Amino acid sequence: MAEENTVYIGNKPTMNYVLAVVTQFNNGNDHVTIKARGRAISRAVDVAEIVRHRFIQEVSVRDIKIDTEVLKGEGGTQANVSSIEIYMSR
Amino acid sequence: MAEENTVYIGNKPTMNYVLAVVTQFNNGNDHVTIKARGRAISRAVDVAEIVRHRFIQEVSVRDIKIDTEVLKGEGGTQANVSSIEIYMSR
Repeated sequence: MAEENTVYIGNKPTMNYVLAVVTQFNNGNDHVTIKARGRAISRAVDVAEIVRHRFIQEVSVRDIKIDTEVLKGEGGTQANVSSIEIYMSR
Repeated sequence: MAEENTVYIGNKPTMNYVLAVVTQFNNGNDHVTIKARGRAISRAVDVAEIVRHRFIQEVSVRDIKIDTEVLKGEGGTQANVSSIEIYMSR
């Protein structure tokens, strides 16, 4: 799946990311992947739900994957953080 | 899927819910469903990841569903909240 079809969810308002996903579909993409880590996971689910209920009804959630990523900090510390990938397509 | 196989994620510490899921599997259940709404969705993903990576390696995530629930408040107000269901089995 090409990187340009991916929307990374951060700490901006939810509707910013909804707009990003809707724009990808309106530009002719058949599928968009929403990715998030940690606390942004809840927002990623919100984005997917708002896109398919309020904006593009023919888009569905095809697959959802969860995983654990290891983040390495300074001094060799490491932290595990959960991640999610939501695959949407029309 | 029977209700007794379901763990609802709230605002308690993550490890409380990890213990609840591990206990279900140790009691002989073959599958457990983790459910959460709103901000607890991120914690639900953490719980699933910790269970399968740190506690019971033969357990896998079989399916993940997301949805929108309509909460009705006093005076007829309503709010949409995202939800997640994570199906785990061995």
